[in-house]
Order: sequence, then C-alpha cells, then structure tokens
Amino acid sequence: MADAATTLPSSPLKSSLESGILRLTLNKPERMNALSEAMMAALSSALSKATDDDAVRVIVIDAAPGKVFCAGHDLKEMTVHRADRDRGRAYFQDILGRCSALMQQIVTLPKPVIAGVAGVATAAGCQLVASCDLAIATDRATFCTPGVNIGLFCSTPMVALARNVNRKQAMEMLLTGESIDASTAREFGLINRIVPSEYLDTVVMKYAEMIASKSPLTLKIGKEAFYRQAELSLEDAYRYCADVMVENMLARDAEEGIGAFLEKRAPEWEGR
Amino acid sequence: MADAATTLPSSPLKSSLESGILRLTLNKPERMNALSEAMMAALSSALSKATDDDAVRVIVIDAAPGKVFCAGHDLKEMTVHRADRDRGRAYFQDILGRCSALMQQIVTLPKPVIAGVAGVATAAGCQLVASCDLAIATDRATFCTPGVNIGLFCSTPMVALARNVNRKQAMEMLLTGESIDASTAREFGLINRIVPSEYLDTVVMKYAEMIASKSPLTLKIGKEAFYRQAELSLEDAYRYCADVMVENMLARDAEEGIGAFLEKRAPEWEGR
Amino acid sequence: MADAATTLPSSPLKSSLESGILRLTLNKPERMNALSEAMMAALSSALSKATDDDAVRVIVIDAAPGKVFCAGHDLKEMTVHRADRDRGRAYFQDILGRCSALMQQIVTLPKPVIAGVAGVATAAGCQLVASCDLAIATDRATFCTPGVNIGLFCSTPMVALARNVNRKQAMEMLLTGESIDASTAREFGLINRIVPSEYLDTVVMKYAEMIASKSPLTLKIGKEAFYRQAELSLEDAYRYCADVMVENMLARDAEEGIGAFLEKRAPEWEGR
Repeated sequence: MADAATTLPSSPLKSSLESGILRLTLNKPERMNALSEAMMAALSSALSKATDDDAVRVIVIDAAPGKVFCAGHDLKEMTVHRADRDRGRAYFQDILGRCSALMQQIVTLPKPVIAGVAGVATAAGCQLVASCDLAIATDRATFCTPGVNIGLFCSTPMVALARNVNRKQAMEMLLTGESIDASTAREFGLINRIVPSEYLDTVVMKYAEMIASKSPLTLKIGKEAFYRQAELSLEDAYRYCADVMVENMLARDAEEGIGAFLEKRAPEWEGR
Repeated sequence: MADAATTLPSSPLKSSLESGILRLTLNKPERMNALSEAMMAALSSALSKATDDDAVRVIVIDAAPGKVFCAGHDLKEMTVHRADRDRGRAYFQDILGRCSALMQQIVTLPKPVIAGVAGVATAAGCQLVASCDLAIATDRATFCTPGVNIGLFCSTPMVALARNVNRKQAMEMLLTGESIDASTAREFGLINRIVPSEYLDTVVMKYAEMIASKSPLTLKIGKEAFYRQAELSLEDAYRYCADVMVENMLARDAEEGIGAFLEKRAPEWEGR
Repeated sequence: MADAATTLPSSPLKSSLESGILRLTLNKPERMNALSEAMMAALSSALSKATDDDAVRVIVIDAAPGKVFCAGHDLKEMTVHRADRDRGRAYFQDILGRCSALMQQIVTLPKPVIAGVAGVATAAGCQLVASCDLAIATDRATFCTPGVNIGLFCSTPMVALARNVNRKQAMEMLLTGESIDASTAREFGLINRIVPSEYLDTVVMKYAEMIASKSPLTLKIGKEAFYRQAELSLEDAYRYCADVMVENMLARDAEEGIGAFLEKRAPEWEGR
C-alpha cells in the first residue's frame, strides 16, 4: 500500500513491444508503483489493446528499477473519498470493482502473462503477481498481504493468492501480514523461478521468447481451458477439455505442428 | 485413536486467558487426549464462549506435555455402543456429526485459531490440526491418518486434510496410514512452522500475540471471507470479496488503521 | 507423444498377478509405450477385470525397461484419420473420449492404483501418472506436457495435472512444454517418492504389499469418498463423509479391525 496523492503528468506505465513480447513496466517508483486509478486504467487499456493486437504474443509485467514492484492500492487517493456524501462507498465499490476486473482480465486474456518481480509486492501488488500465469522473481523480491495491519483485510488479494498457494500458507500471510522472501514464495507456489537481480530481465525474456515461439492459437485455447477446467468437477472438466482438444486437433496449427514433429522439421504457425 | 473407557472427574480441557489469548489445552494425556464425548463437548463449549467473549482475540489449541497431541476418536467409548439395539448406528451418527460440527466450528469461528503441536496428531487429532487456521509444531511432532489400519478409513479427517494438502500427499497418508514427520508436514502444507520443543510455547504465543494486536473486526471479516471465497468460482469470489472489502473499508477500524498508517502512528482498534 | 503406426501382434500390455497385486506393464517400448488404441483398450479391459476380481487388491502401472514410461497419444495413428471425410473429427472425439474415460476409470476404480515410473512420462503419459492414487519414480524419471510445442495444447492431460499440482507450476509445464525432473515433480506434488532406479520395483512392491494388507472394503470406501468429497463444499463434504464413516463403522471389517486393535492382535479382513 502506498500514499500517492498527486498524479504526475508522465504516464504511470511504460510500454514496449519487441519480437512479439509486450513489456508493461509499472513506472511510478516514487509512488511505489501503486495501483492508482491512473495506473489501473493504463494497465487495463494496455491489456485490452494487447488482446486484439496480433503482434503481441506474450505479455510481461514488471516494474521500473527500485525497491518496490507494486505497493497495492493508493491509500491516499482512496482516503480522500471518505469526505464524499456516502463516506466513499460508491468510490470504493468502483475502485475495487475495477481492480478485480483488471486481475480477471489477466486471467481471461488469451495470451500468457508473465510477472517479473525485483522488489516488494504488497497487497494488490501481490495479487497482481498471483494473477499472472507465470512469475519470475529475483532473490530480493518479497511478497506480503499486510492489509490486516491497517484494519483492511486483503480480501480481494486473497482471491488470487488462495488460487496459487495452499490454505495454511495463505492464512499465514493474511493473518500475520508478514513478508515472505522469494524462496518461501517459490516453495508456496506463488512464483516459478528465482534469479539473481542482474539476470531478471534476461530470464524473463528467455521464457517470454520461448513461449512466444509457440502457436498463438494453441496458447489461447490452452490458457482459456486451463482456468475454466479448474472450476469444474473431474467429469465435467474431462468432457469440456476433450471437446477443446478435438477443436484444437482440427485447427491448422495442430496439423502443422504434428506434421512438423513427425517430419522432424520446425513448425510454422499462423499469425494468430 | 485411543482406548479410553472411564471418564475421570477432572476436566479434559484446561483453559486460560491472558492478554486476549485463550489457550485451550487438551488435558487427558493418560487417554492420549482422545476426542471423547467429554473432550469434544468441552472444546465446543469453550469455543462457543470464546466466540462471544470480546476479551478473547485469538485461540490456541495445544496439549498437556506428553507424547501425544491428540489420538483421535475414543475407540473404546465408540465400541461399547456396538451392543446398542441398532449396533451403534445412532450413536456413531451422533458422535461423527458432533465431531464434524466441532471441526467446522473452528473454521467458522470469527477469531483465528492456532494449533500448537508437540506430539503425535492422529486421525481426528490430525484433522484438528488441519482445521485450525495456523499450526506450529515441534520437530518431534508427527501426523497420521491411520484409520485404514483398523478397517475404518479416515473419511472425515480427510475432509480437513485434503483442504490443506495436495492430493497425492493426502492419499499417501490415507492409504498407507504411515506417519509423516514435522518437516514433511510443513512441506505438504499441513503446518506453518517447526520449532525446537523447548520453544513451542514461546513461538505459538509470539504469533498469537502478534495476531491479537490486529483489529478483531478485521480478523473476523477476513477469516470468514477466506473460507467462503475458497468455495466460489473466480468471478463469484471477486464479486463477493469486493463487497466484503467495501464494507471493511467503511468500518471504523479501517478508517483508523489507514489513518494511523498515513500519519505514521500506531492504530487503536475498537474492542471488537 | 510417439509416432507408432503399425501394431505388432504381441500384446501392448504385460499383466501379472501375485499376492493380490496386479502389475500392468506398458510393453511397447519400441513405440514409447504410446497410448495407442490397442494400449488403451488393453489397459481399460485389464482395469475392468481387476475391478471385479477379488484376488486383485492393489494395481501397479509401470513400464517395460527403457527410457520411456509412456509418451502419450499415438500421433501417427491419429494423423492417419485426417484423411477421413470429417477430417478426423469423429475419430478424435472417440479417441479423446476413450482416453478421458480410461483416466477416470483409474480414479473411480475401487482399488488403489500406484504408478511406478522409471522413464519419461509425456502428455497423456504424464496424465496417467497424475491419475493414479500414488506415484513412485526413479531419480531419472521426467515429466512433461509438451503439446504446446506441436500446436496441440495438453488440455486433457491438464485436467489430471491441475488436480495434483498448484496452478503456477501446472502452467509452467503447460506453457513452456519443458520437462521437470523427479525432484521437481515431488516438490510439485505429482509424485510421492523418488528411489534409485535399481530399487524401483522393490519400493513399488513394498508400498503395494503394505496397502494390499489393508481391508479391501475399507480401501474401496475411502478411495471413493476421497475423490467425491474433493468436489464438495466443506459443509457438504462433512455431511457426506460422516455418513460414509458411519457405514464404514458398521461394516464387519471395521468391527474386526477396531477389535483387533483394542485386543492388540492382527486383524483378519474379509475377502472384499
């Protein structure tokens, strides 16, 4: 959580596209990259554009150099609205609804999203990491859901956290508000890889490029099916995923991919 | 599982309240702290009282010094009822219903419950640990669900176990009936911390005190939301938790907590 | 995934029964033990027979010596059907339906199934390991879901994988297609034990024999209840499992098992 009041004219999000990889860099280090209205709007807009842009194959979310990856909601921005006639209710509903929509946008987005975390990921910042498909962090990254310390339990962050991490571990983070280090986060299942700080960009890009080399259609089919089947019973999940796989099998990219495999050559995917 | 037939006049549960921490100590070591009728009644009653007692902020469940934390159901007590006209059916229904209610009481109780485990936690004793929000154990603690060895699969214990531990690990414990040590239990996600025996009380109390220093209302909101959202789809969980967080935001303790944070002072919570 | 076109006259599955343990050995190493039509039919048929055969108490699925445990679907066999009038749709539906049914047959089978894995488990081969109740592997075993590399996301394999392994780990395997070694697989929860290659048979048989020494009825009750309660809410799971346990308690094997335990003698189970 951060205390950012004013918005500077500069954009809170830096964006760059190279070799099919869209890199979205949280770029308000002086505001601890808090998920202010402006930051959430910028992220959501960038993700929407990326959804429809065939040139984007994989998305990376990282942060400008500094101690903080993302400090969660912008508490000063929120506190101002306590002066509203409804004590802020409408504003809080709006801001939490928008934040929840943003996190779900990452999950439903038809392209893989990788978090690259070099610093502190707090509250909704931790939720952002948990919402990505993969997460790679430096050995200095830390993660916490400290809302309990300020009387505001991390209830929406825990939706993402509890879908990454087993229950007692999630409860430990939520009830104590204490930070866990990268090693513990990997053990808990919140992140996939730990690298020395100086190699974070290299490793994140290596994974992004590797995944960007796959068929975009296949990634889209698979990512969507993964999160949908996770909410179904075993029987329903098999029925649904068998259907998904039949359609996938009939798609041009599977024909090309399997053909290339059997002929021991590199496949050539369709644009999307 | 234990073989306790007679009930001694002394209470099976020792209870003490200090600095907001209610410590409930299973106190029938000579009966391996089995979840006899008397023990379950005492635990359930103490938890009910704690629910309504503003002086209680955190609950610790531990056991009197000895090799056993809790050996599960009292098999002799149960076996006696095989002589009933219905071969015990009504009694078994009643006792398993009461045990299941006790475990769910821990989950739905609006205050955090921490298990402190120094010895063997078996069957419903292992379930008791799994049902707590957090668990801290000594390096000599062991955990098992050995019902399969006596022809009575640990079917109710596995409800709690399977919500702590991944499937293959749970199945390993259930099908083999073998014990796992504290280190394995932590790896599986059944416990949070391992400490040397002589520090168990100190560490359990440190965590209990830390959590007791948070806003009781916030803990209540967060604990309830955690277990409810765990059973919802991602979309429903976000909708529900966003509502929870708005209400939390409008509560006096969040206003105080966030204000204190922004003003860099210690918060003062309401009694409950 | 393998490229097997012709079917040799020899059976793709070796089967042997000893001391209550049915060992089903995938026996087409020259075809990487692919789940061809013939292999799936042989497995399904052997499992059906084992379900009804009181002499079978535990089932082991392993593979003939070689580098591969099971390479998933038989891609050449599938590719041939692209020449069908419907481009293979009906065939793919049939083959994926049968594969999904086979995996669910393992889950619903009333006897424990243990995978013994010495080599590479790929795609539906990895799914096969994930579908078993327990898995023991050598330190040379590897696991992957590489469908993404050939344009065919491992959508049905992930149903089993995602019910063994936390989300980010599953996504890592699915999106990268990379192999994980046995040590990582154990950490993720995909397998239970790692042993040196020369001890795989010994350790698998030790576990199979230990479990075969339990009451078959109790194993059947417990295994069925485990997978059913996993899909229920906490409250429904407790209601259901309390009922299951009452019936279990009233069964002859629980009476015998508890009696033997209280009398400190070995129990004698009914045949089934």
